[in-house]
Amino acid sequence: MSERRQFRELTDPDVAHEVVDGLELSPDTEHVPLADAGGRVLAERVDAALDVPGFDRANLDGYALRARDTFGADEADPARLSVVGTVHAGAEPTVEMDDGEAVEISTGAVMPPGADAMVPVERTDDEGQGDDRDVLIRTSVAPGDNVMLAGADVAAGERALGPGTRLTAREIGLLSALGVDEVPVRGQPTVGIVSTGDELVRPGETLNSDAGQIYDVNSYTIATAVEEAGGEPVLYPHAGDDYDEMERILVEASEECDVVLSSGSTSASAVDVIYQVIEDRGELLLHGVGIKPGKPMLVGELAGGAYVGLPGYPVSAMMTFRVFVAPLIREAAGLPEPASATIDGEMATEARHDQGRRRLMPVGLVENSTGDRLVYPVDKGSGATTSLADADGLVTVDAETDYLAAGEPVTVKLFSPDVRPPTVFGVGEDDPAVSRLLDRLSNPRYLSVGTRQGLRRLRDGVPDVAVTSGSAAPDVEANELATWQREWGLVVPAGNPEHIEGLGDLVDRDLRLINRTTDSGLRTTLSEAIADLSDERGTTRHELVEAIDGFDLAVRAHESPARKVKNGRADAGLGLRATASRLDLGFVPLGVETVRVLALPDRLGKNGLQELAATLADIDSVLADLDGYQRS
Amino acid sequence: MSERRQFRELTDPDVAHEVVDGLELSPDTEHVPLADAGGRVLAERVDAALDVPGFDRANLDGYALRARDTFGADEADPARLSVVGTVHAGAEPTVEMDDGEAVEISTGAVMPPGADAMVPVERTDDEGQGDDRDVLIRTSVAPGDNVMLAGADVAAGERALGPGTRLTAREIGLLSALGVDEVPVRGQPTVGIVSTGDELVRPGETLNSDAGQIYDVNSYTIATAVEEAGGEPVLYPHAGDDYDEMERILVEASEECDVVLSSGSTSASAVDVIYQVIEDRGELLLHGVGIKPGKPMLVGELAGGAYVGLPGYPVSAMMTFRVFVAPLIREAAGLPEPASATIDGEMATEARHDQGRRRLMPVGLVENSTGDRLVYPVDKGSGATTSLADADGLVTVDAETDYLAAGEPVTVKLFSPDVRPPTVFGVGEDDPAVSRLLDRLSNPRYLSVGTRQGLRRLRDGVPDVAVTSGSAAPDVEANELATWQREWGLVVPAGNPEHIEGLGDLVDRDLRLINRTTDSGLRTTLSEAIADLSDERGTTRHELVEAIDGFDLAVRAHESPARKVKNGRADAGLGLRATASRLDLGFVPLGVETVRVLALPDRLGKNGLQELAATLADIDSVLADLDGYQRS
Repeated sequence: MSERRQFRELTDPDVAHEVVDGLELSPDTEHVPLADAGGRVLAERVDAALDVPGFDRANLDGYALRARDTFGADEADPARLSVVGTVHAGAEPTVEMDDGEAVEISTGAVMPPGADAMVPVERTDDEGQGDDRDVLIRTSVAPGDNVMLAGADVAAGERALGPGTRLTAREIGLLSALGVDEVPVRGQPTVGIVSTGDELVRPGETLNSDAGQIYDVNSYTIATAVEEAGGEPVLYPHAGDDYDEMERILVEASEECDVVLSSGSTSASAVDVIYQVIEDRGELLLHGVGIKPGKPMLVGELAGGAYVGLPGYPVSAMMTFRVFVAPLIREAAGLPEPASATIDGEMATEARHDQGRRRLMPVGLVENSTGDRLVYPVDKGSGATTSLADADGLVTVDAETDYLAAGEPVTVKLFSPDVRPPTVFGVGEDDPAVSRLLDRLSNPRYLSVGTRQGLRRLRDGVPDVAVTSGSAAPDVEANELATWQREWGLVVPAGNPEHIEGLGDLVDRDLRLINRTTDSGLRTTLSEAIADLSDERGTTRHELVEAIDGFDLAVRAHESPARKVKNGRADAGLGLRATASRLDLGFVPLGVETVRVLALPDRLGKNGLQELAATLADIDSVLADLDGYQRS
Repeated sequence: MSERRQFRELTDPDVAHEVVDGLELSPDTEHVPLADAGGRVLAERVDAALDVPGFDRANLDGYALRARDTFGADEADPARLSVVGTVHAGAEPTVEMDDGEAVEISTGAVMPPGADAMVPVERTDDEGQGDDRDVLIRTSVAPGDNVMLAGADVAAGERALGPGTRLTAREIGLLSALGVDEVPVRGQPTVGIVSTGDELVRPGETLNSDAGQIYDVNSYTIATAVEEAGGEPVLYPHAGDDYDEMERILVEASEECDVVLSSGSTSASAVDVIYQVIEDRGELLLHGVGIKPGKPMLVGELAGGAYVGLPGYPVSAMMTFRVFVAPLIREAAGLPEPASATIDGEMATEARHDQGRRRLMPVGLVENSTGDRLVYPVDKGSGATTSLADADGLVTVDAETDYLAAGEPVTVKLFSPDVRPPTVFGVGEDDPAVSRLLDRLSNPRYLSVGTRQGLRRLRDGVPDVAVTSGSAAPDVEANELATWQREWGLVVPAGNPEHIEGLGDLVDRDLRLINRTTDSGLRTTLSEAIADLSDERGTTRHELVEAIDGFDLAVRAHESPARKVKNGRADAGLGLRATASRLDLGFVPLGVETVRVLALPDRLGKNGLQELAATLADIDSVLADLDGYQRS
């Protein structure tokens, strides 16, 4: 126990990097067929075992001859030679040449014995036919002209490729030329992946949400990231908090793989169990790192293999993998980090942090009109899996830094080398037309944060575009790219069994509503309608709201109220006619509100915005499919 | 025939791009398991089918409770609640809560019915045990605090990922969270590859060089490039010039693949045969493009599929593929070109071209001390496969441009996105110690162009380093990083059957020599020795040279003379003691010459040069393995 306490002193992150980098992963050399060698890394130097070409080779179609027979020849005074034979590419010469003779030869064919040069057919004229053929040579050549000597390209014994060479198409080409059909390559490190947690269910299996089950996110995420880093992932069954099960799975994985990664211990007890297994069956090298997130990281050796325990939350696991583990796998695979995996940008907004611990900050990227990359923090809470998809990478913030100013240059480690900044970055109201619009754009990002949040972010100058809904045009300096109308009201069960006719029924009767959160423009529109009703009835808005059961039961997403109605959990949900139609539910119309697509003026020059504008020009075809939608 | 002639008017390259881009490749959507979906492109939009989380979820270890029971509670005046049960992650709550009660809860567990907030364990104290347990709550919380509501992360019905999304680790994570285990992805276009030419032999098979056979370079090179572009290559047998065979193979490939690429017709007759097959069995869209290389390119349709005929020389085939075909494959696969596939640089030297045709210029890259990328033309003749490995990409030079000045900015299309500029770029003498040294460097490039060419290039300021051999120090402004001595002389058959004792024997007796080319420093050293001998004998150098049979039989690579001796094709070869020992041959020593590693002064700051300097500090360990080598 006293031994455990010493780990509670968090290890300095730089020391943690050294400990991880010191883990021994040494996959064996493999021999793979040339056809499968692309992308692999040469394990040993390859020297040429033969000359390329293997013979003196004609570079052109024409005549092989002795150079001295052409001395002095030109257009006016051609040399006449007797044609004594023909050599085709891929055939052995059957003639030997003498002075005054020539042999017709194809590109790539073997120079016949006795010839020391060749003349292209364009500088010659045929005379006669068959055995009695002559050729007139209208130019003079020197020995070696238009001939590639054996070994001139690659000579036997020459160093062709060095160890550690990444085999791209061109290296495969060189190996082909050398006749190599099996290539010694660095083994890919095998990486065992063990997600822990009794609540995890593998995607595709049935989920029991009532029992708190969730789909396992880390296993496939980390597996894909391992592949991207050049490793070979091996997925193991989930381990619960049970010591025996954990020990069995971890030891099995460790015996079969070069390194084992665990993740997903949302409860402290699972960490304790893993900790105990490593202590008993291997060696714990560190436990707890002074970095956020990443504090609960474990590093050790187990059953002779390496072990790293990653934090459980997906974004935390991904960032810790990216910073600590991906370099280890790349190193073992012999692959350098792709140049595209790290990019420079500048902060789009300020960011504040607690001092005292190094921080891995998940960030998104957006490009301005001049192609500069702006970097903004993404933080929806570490438990959110969507922040995984909304972030492009991470910025490491030093322990001493508590403030990053807007415009400050930062370096972003991308989550994958293939991650690209979105072509257009929008935020704002959740709207089915927007959702369809996005399908027509090449690489958009859209965050459904609601009208209020969307406008706030647009004012901060981060996204390209904000989408709002409501009656009045919002007060923001922006270009209106498009507007349309959507019909809103109460989504009710099919056939409207409670015969709801309007908001008054919700106030007067014992009916349960599902509302939207206050960030939603639709919620604001509802509030305005309630204010109108209170004027009409001569009462206060507060009194009406208090009388509506479920007015405070607010959900974030636009379809959620309708889905709860469909599941019988409410009598009415704030929503759109389009949603009611789509889900085959009833609808009580309450009004029409305007959706606006607003763009930051200084982003209009972006290619992505031009693509958006072009797509919006055809917005009618999107709206036509949606009930209750029309162009403004 | 008249129809054919019209193709002889070369098509404008921009038109050729349009014709190729217009080819229809539409691979079907595939459904792949999530575990195999990394790197693929989503074919359809994926909406969330469920809420994530699927339940109201505790964010921390602690106590679930009713927020109103904590109002006013603080460190000094904690609220006392009765603990009525426990909920673990992955378990269904078995208790319902009432006022004044709390339930112990784990991170990730389902909030029990009746609870609306939770307090982390750190802000609580246990009192009592078992059924009679109380908890003191030392903070007040609001409804929703430390709880993630069902659907707060992703709500059922929300757009999760759009069509065309490249699936990297983070997207795989989001799909996992949604329980998706099978993903609709864009099919990879299948690309049939047919190399043509009777002289081709597939790597691994036996080569008959006497019959002019060569290994097929294009098949595997293009196959790897197809994979890199996101396609699936299918290799077909080589086709010779026979019409029936060509027709059978091309039609079969076209029926089985989305597009067929042919290459390798080194003779005009093969092109004529292909041309005829396309005319007979499909439609020829263009024949001949105004671009160099690439002029013989064919584009057409065959058996319902697309067809592109690439030039035969490997570098030409690679460049034409990169410029015309790779974009077609990427487009069909739904993959954007990786940002790393195209880079900016500036010309390291001037380059002149014939005007009148657009030109694809193969280039190499080298970085200077400040990380700027310098671009130099690579041209060893289009037939050379080594220029494939020595080039990093290509620069497109307009038809109107006949001159690129040193320092002029150019855009380089890399042959593969993974191509990286070498860490150190050396040129010069072919030397076994250099070759071993290279194995210890991370990503070197070394061109064995000989001492003379090496010095010329170093003076032009292109490479980082030149290696020279000879007696006198060369006249160049450079830093000498290291020097060593190597013993040179005549490599003779094992046991020296002709009892050769020195150069005099070659002059006086009927013995055949294999020499090195004049670019080689060793050749210069030999010439100096012959000059000494002529002084000694009171004759001219010319007379001695004339008397040596084979003095003009010069080969480029350092091992080639020795190998020819070993094969019985000469009595003596100019070479090194180290080479004689390695090949178990005899050796007649003639002297010792100095090898020098010279660096451009303004490149010394490069990381690669520092790595080289560090490796050279341990050069003794390299020299120790080489007979006849020692430190200067």
